[in-house]
Amino acid sequence: MSTSTSIPFFSMGLSTFQVQKEMFSENRNKLLQNLRKELPNHDCMVYLEGGKATTRYDSDHEPLFRQESYFHYLFGVKEPDFCGAINIKTGESYLFCQKLPQDYATIMGHIATCEEIKNEYLVDHVKYTSDAEQELVSFCKGGGQILLMRGVNSDSGTEYKPPLFESKEIVCDEKILFPILAECRVQKSQKELNLIRYCTEITSLGHVWTMQKMKPGMMEYQGESLFRHFIYFNYGSRHVGYTSICGCGPNAAILHYGHSGEPNARQLQDGETALFDMGAEYFCYGSDITCSFPVSSSRKFTEKQKIVYEGVLNAQRTVIQMLKPGVSYRDCHKAAEGEILKALVKLDIVRPGSKTIDELVEMRLGAVFMPHGLGHFIGIDTHDVGGYLPSNPERSSGPGLRSLRTARQMKTNMTLTVEPGCYFIDHLIDKAIEDDSPLREYLNADELNSFRGFGGTRLEDVVAITENGCENFTICPRTVNEVEHVMAGGKWPPTKDEDPTLRRVRLTSGGSCSMPVSTPM
Amino acid sequence: MSTSTSIPFFSMGLSTFQVQKEMFSENRNKLLQNLRKELPNHDCMVYLEGGKATTRYDSDHEPLFRQESYFHYLFGVKEPDFCGAINIKTGESYLFCQKLPQDYATIMGHIATCEEIKNEYLVDHVKYTSDAEQELVSFCKGGGQILLMRGVNSDSGTEYKPPLFESKEIVCDEKILFPILAECRVQKSQKELNLIRYCTEITSLGHVWTMQKMKPGMMEYQGESLFRHFIYFNYGSRHVGYTSICGCGPNAAILHYGHSGEPNARQLQDGETALFDMGAEYFCYGSDITCSFPVSSSRKFTEKQKIVYEGVLNAQRTVIQMLKPGVSYRDCHKAAEGEILKALVKLDIVRPGSKTIDELVEMRLGAVFMPHGLGHFIGIDTHDVGGYLPSNPERSSGPGLRSLRTARQMKTNMTLTVEPGCYFIDHLIDKAIEDDSPLREYLNADELNSFRGFGGTRLEDVVAITENGCENFTICPRTVNEVEHVMAGGKWPPTKDEDPTLRRVRLTSGGSCSMPVSTPM
Repeated sequence: MSTSTSIPFFSMGLSTFQVQKEMFSENRNKLLQNLRKELPNHDCMVYLEGGKATTRYDSDHEPLFRQESYFHYLFGVKEPDFCGAINIKTGESYLFCQKLPQDYATIMGHIATCEEIKNEYLVDHVKYTSDAEQELVSFCKGGGQILLMRGVNSDSGTEYKPPLFESKEIVCDEKILFPILAECRVQKSQKELNLIRYCTEITSLGHVWTMQKMKPGMMEYQGESLFRHFIYFNYGSRHVGYTSICGCGPNAAILHYGHSGEPNARQLQDGETALFDMGAEYFCYGSDITCSFPVSSSRKFTEKQKIVYEGVLNAQRTVIQMLKPGVSYRDCHKAAEGEILKALVKLDIVRPGSKTIDELVEMRLGAVFMPHGLGHFIGIDTHDVGGYLPSNPERSSGPGLRSLRTARQMKTNMTLTVEPGCYFIDHLIDKAIEDDSPLREYLNADELNSFRGFGGTRLEDVVAITENGCENFTICPRTVNEVEHVMAGGKWPPTKDEDPTLRRVRLTSGGSCSMPVSTPM
Repeated sequence: MSTSTSIPFFSMGLSTFQVQKEMFSENRNKLLQNLRKELPNHDCMVYLEGGKATTRYDSDHEPLFRQESYFHYLFGVKEPDFCGAINIKTGESYLFCQKLPQDYATIMGHIATCEEIKNEYLVDHVKYTSDAEQELVSFCKGGGQILLMRGVNSDSGTEYKPPLFESKEIVCDEKILFPILAECRVQKSQKELNLIRYCTEITSLGHVWTMQKMKPGMMEYQGESLFRHFIYFNYGSRHVGYTSICGCGPNAAILHYGHSGEPNARQLQDGETALFDMGAEYFCYGSDITCSFPVSSSRKFTEKQKIVYEGVLNAQRTVIQMLKPGVSYRDCHKAAEGEILKALVKLDIVRPGSKTIDELVEMRLGAVFMPHGLGHFIGIDTHDVGGYLPSNPERSSGPGLRSLRTARQMKTNMTLTVEPGCYFIDHLIDKAIEDDSPLREYLNADELNSFRGFGGTRLEDVVAITENGCENFTICPRTVNEVEHVMAGGKWPPTKDEDPTLRRVRLTSGGSCSMPVSTPM
């Protein structure tokens, strides 16, 4: 991590990505402009608390701090216990830091001066948190109003709560800020796009490195360990965006497998599919990629695995073809389901009879096999904010569709995952083929039952919406041919003289082009 | 992770350690016996809440769950959102689990039945958390009393708070339980000792593997990445006991370096010392080891580094020689300081004049160079509980001594770290040599000033107190010769035909003896 005197940036050294701190001044300006449009009176001050240092329960264990996401968006501060403010009229920005005793240096290192903090984070004023409330009181006495965040995260259902002040003289509004700041985060700036592209490229490379090493007899968590080591050792990614999901065999059908109760601790068996969903994070921006690949001494898919895999790949490609400004994400979801149903027809699991695929989609047959949403916004949070703001289409109640994390129309510079999947989940199969199920007549129960325990396949890419379509940041092998190429130890990206049908992916993010994709010892 | 039908255990598969779940029944029995001794009336029920699933702030990000430590001690439950109870009179144990909807299985996997939970965790009764409060009400109506935990952690200063009940009919005591349960955790059972020995052995091996790979030009965090990968990939350690401290050069003098503000992101320079403080955790028990080694293309210490290093090593050895039941940990701390001062005399930094080393220790001169305590209890928490319970010696107010995490007399089966260190910390040096400092006349300021930026050296072992002394679980190379042997690529443990002065460490923990100490790909 270094800062030059002229242009401060964050970097983990060597050839890791350099995040210009100006990114955060730009984010603050975007908020400023959007608030000024909405507010008749500009005599307002935005005030946010950053994340606080915590201990695990009552113990002395301090988990590694990760900044709160809205605060990171506006200030990019890597330390805990800061607050920040922005004056809407003047545009001046403030950071409030803790006044630390000298002994702190013994334990934690150099105590930055206010001047150093000002230069590192490109704000106009740095004061102590102990003075923050008085600062707000003075502002309000001059007729101003404080804008605070209060609102519910549409993915977690958790409420963001504003700080409580002791002083009664602080005049607050808790309604204006939340939807506007959340909306700011939806369409990314060029600097944010570059950072997410970096995260996605290193995540892609980490997946390839990991899948090449997985063999029957290994444990699922060894894949998690390989991935984490690759992205941290080579690319400075200390955090992951989420707990790695490394399921093989039947576990590949458990959508959030890998949690403490199911800690990626099954042994890989020859002939299974593995589904690895893992993402790097760098300076609080992340990526989120899923690869599915054969666990096999032959390093190849079986015929049935191939049909499921190609159905999911077609679903993903269909959606990526559709994506451009104005397109509804809900329509994309349905298109993905259609492609998966086509593969299930090929497997004689689905028998459409007189129905078209579109009609089966409308009956929500696809949700039996893809019970989750097509994807989600991604950025500072893996499930990034803004999916269902008050001005957006409401959440559907239909199977599968109700799990969609947004139903919005696409806009330029939105970053999203496209992650269709096809799973064989016992209790969903039971329900679909029970006597009074309207779906039963379109399913071949015998064939479907033979797929119990087969697991699942998901392919997840990260894309950004452009003027005319989308840019796919993901550079993983995707066709059956490409996956089998890397499983057999082939180079990725492929070299010039290899099979010409292999995609020639290009590493585009600034610093990472020249990074050695070396084996971390 | 597997459970056989007869003897349930936790393991991460392959040849990782198998934790018998009976360990937790034994822990419950110990609490039971100690409570029965203290309580005139046995008509009591212990009630604890386990850790809860959380999200990061308002986001949808769920950090990987790690059980609350007291709850883990008594029940060893790996999932969040449980509660537990123990009837003091009958000895019966209860777990309360959430009643989960069928949809949960899609996301999280198989929903265990109450019968399955009962068999996995060896308790007498499993009920739903929604019924827990009613269960306590019934118990109190029969004349019983509920024992709850309330108390302050002496390391963090954080209060453990009991749950709040809706019913007024629950009769609670919040004083009895905390000190007795904390004291239970201080002297470890044989099963706990075996587990801590395993954690310490894999931590030792991880340190050796990491230090062998560190070279000038690498980044500090690459060491953290190597260590974490080694212990997870080979030995199933998914969590670490604490954020890895990987400081080189001046950063080696920052005691808790490696936090979010100083994220191990400095490049290693030829000629520096590195101080790596890292520990594995396995099923919520941990280890905590520090190694200091030369960062050098010659793979050797400089003469000055060697004197500092050997001073710290003498301090550690002196303490390990002293440790046995009845010895005061505060006396050990002072003995360690004495050895470090002797090394500083050799370096002509300390000039005792007419004073003896012991007199200089009493003047607290050692605390200028070792401002932290000698060590701490270790177990389920890295800074394990019980350091200052009401019946123990009080915390000292003297420099260095006030940082001691316990001042107790040793008892068998206590597990502790022994971690003397010698650091050159600017603001402590400034203070010691200022005009009115009583320490000034015993310091050679010119020589001392030349050590600014030198960093620090710490050696940290994990030991268990035995009947006549202590067992050192740590199997790291420790002498200068041993460290230089591994830095030069030598095998560890050394092979038969290597230098006979190298210590022949033995891997003793059950499962790990036969583990291949292989290079994780």
